[in-house]
Amino acid sequence: MKAHRAERAPLRVKPLGLSGSANFTVAQLIGQAESILVICHIMPDGDAIGSLLGLGWVLHKLGKEYTLACADPVPDPFAYLPASQAIVARPEGEYDLVISLDCSDLKRLGVAYDQDSLRGVPIINIDHHITNVGFGSVNWVDPSSAATAQMVLTLIERLEVPLDPIMATCLLNGIVTDTRGFRTSNTTPAVMEAATRLMTAGASLPEITEHVFNRRPLAVVRLWGRALSVVQLDGRIIWTEISQAMKHECGLSSDSDDGLVSFLSSACEADVGVVLTEKDDGTTDVSMRSIPGIDISSVAMRLGGGGHPQAAGCNLNSSLAEARERVLDELRHSLLEQTAHC
Amino acid sequence: MKAHRAERAPLRVKPLGLSGSANFTVAQLIGQAESILVICHIMPDGDAIGSLLGLGWVLHKLGKEYTLACADPVPDPFAYLPASQAIVARPEGEYDLVISLDCSDLKRLGVAYDQDSLRGVPIINIDHHITNVGFGSVNWVDPSSAATAQMVLTLIERLEVPLDPIMATCLLNGIVTDTRGFRTSNTTPAVMEAATRLMTAGASLPEITEHVFNRRPLAVVRLWGRALSVVQLDGRIIWTEISQAMKHECGLSSDSDDGLVSFLSSACEADVGVVLTEKDDGTTDVSMRSIPGIDISSVAMRLGGGGHPQAAGCNLNSSLAEARERVLDELRHSLLEQTAHC
Repeated sequence: MKAHRAERAPLRVKPLGLSGSANFTVAQLIGQAESILVICHIMPDGDAIGSLLGLGWVLHKLGKEYTLACADPVPDPFAYLPASQAIVARPEGEYDLVISLDCSDLKRLGVAYDQDSLRGVPIINIDHHITNVGFGSVNWVDPSSAATAQMVLTLIERLEVPLDPIMATCLLNGIVTDTRGFRTSNTTPAVMEAATRLMTAGASLPEITEHVFNRRPLAVVRLWGRALSVVQLDGRIIWTEISQAMKHECGLSSDSDDGLVSFLSSACEADVGVVLTEKDDGTTDVSMRSIPGIDISSVAMRLGGGGHPQAAGCNLNSSLAEARERVLDELRHSLLEQTAHC
Repeated sequence: MKAHRAERAPLRVKPLGLSGSANFTVAQLIGQAESILVICHIMPDGDAIGSLLGLGWVLHKLGKEYTLACADPVPDPFAYLPASQAIVARPEGEYDLVISLDCSDLKRLGVAYDQDSLRGVPIINIDHHITNVGFGSVNWVDPSSAATAQMVLTLIERLEVPLDPIMATCLLNGIVTDTRGFRTSNTTPAVMEAATRLMTAGASLPEITEHVFNRRPLAVVRLWGRALSVVQLDGRIIWTEISQAMKHECGLSSDSDDGLVSFLSSACEADVGVVLTEKDDGTTDVSMRSIPGIDISSVAMRLGGGGHPQAAGCNLNSSLAEARERVLDELRHSLLEQTAHC
């Protein structure tokens, strides 16, 4: 899918602000482009990969040259998606358009976005994260969408490409994962309608559910047991941590899924749930969830990460113990501030 | 809501077989009845309670006299549903119609159905369990429905009662719980459409999700930790058990939710998940889940229980250790038989 193209005039794009109607412009730009690089964020989730593959299949149907890129590998639960093996880490073609998907910040495209070779190439920034910094030449950022895949579905209709089972499966994968199976507070009737449309177009919700929620290695089940056995309550913050030693003892080589932090934060006694995971490079991944009304994305941003008001995270260049102190401290302050306003 | 009525001619109902179109007859019978007893099964789940309260509100709108009954108390997660406190255990009125909801067998109505006082009163049996034995005067059993609440929604349309937020919330509660939040293999586009319709009528999916999935006592979180720490794999059966001692150590007075067995059965290495729970009366509750293609409802029925092909259970009058041996033995045989046919 790498692009090899003849010389052509560059696309002219003037910078646009944030706008829900930017999908008009986006569709026009895609229509004019001949060779497109589509990239999603590092450490991709099911919405990033689903949106990437879904839009890739649309570009294929439009007869475009295109490359799909992500700096990090496709996580196992999403490897079932059609053409997932075609995603490259470091794209090398020449492009007249870059589309960034589900990514709040240019840095989070990682090595998949090479600033030198892509200098001057317009970027369409399609994202639903409220923390998006608007780094694109065109920014279509819609925090009212539950998933970037939901925005891609709108775009497909704008592009007048008929929905097919492959697109539908990729996009439903995005919606299902980002709403944790229709469980997040932003699951509106519009989200359900989008899901129904995708199912009617041939996506199998039970199959997607089976891949993304119903299948995890026994080692992960055992790791949950270990992590939940050492759970701690600190005021209204419930937290646990996963050390490298715990992973080894459970026979787990990769990381756990983020279901653990969601489960943790379901405790009635808590408003915020945190899972700290020691990485093999010595850094610590921090995953957070909060109840509606409590915003943790600001804490995640202060710690160099990002996300949504109720689901956010970051990676800290410090040990598990140091990370724990720092995160709990930030959260205590933030909760104090937020509840003081109530 | 208890009925006090004047003498009137009894309804005449001839026995009907299983039929998807029985909802015509059901609507007619409800239209003719004046005082209706609606009952759901013992140990009620979210579909039983949601269907009961949803239909109750419909009968209220129709101006009927009615009583809502369930032999066991409404579980905490469903106490938020409007009028949940109006459900009685032993109804004492006089009725000209009984409606059984979500119940596969007359015995499972428990003390809420008093055979002596209700002798000769026709029973409408509305259920989606494939194991339903057809005990009603009219049996409307539709295993293609993901929840009895989905059938009640069809009935409401047949009765031409306008959907309102209260009905919608009760019924969506039923659909959400019985599909484990749209995660079971019978979650069809029709289920999604029903859910969307209920949301559009005023049911808040996030609120329901919050009550039924996102809120559990910290003690339950700790109990998961304990139970998952002692998980065992026996061939393709993954199982764990919860003793009274474990519950006490975690500070839990009630039972855990059935999310644990679903989580357990997500292990890639297993086809069947089992949670055995020691009850305070010395009996053992057995909850089972299986992957699509493996039927455990037959094992549950042989052990005196019931359920669906992929989600079934029973209560055994034996100790945890005895129950474990018996259940694992039955399951091993069943799996051997089922996989031999593959």
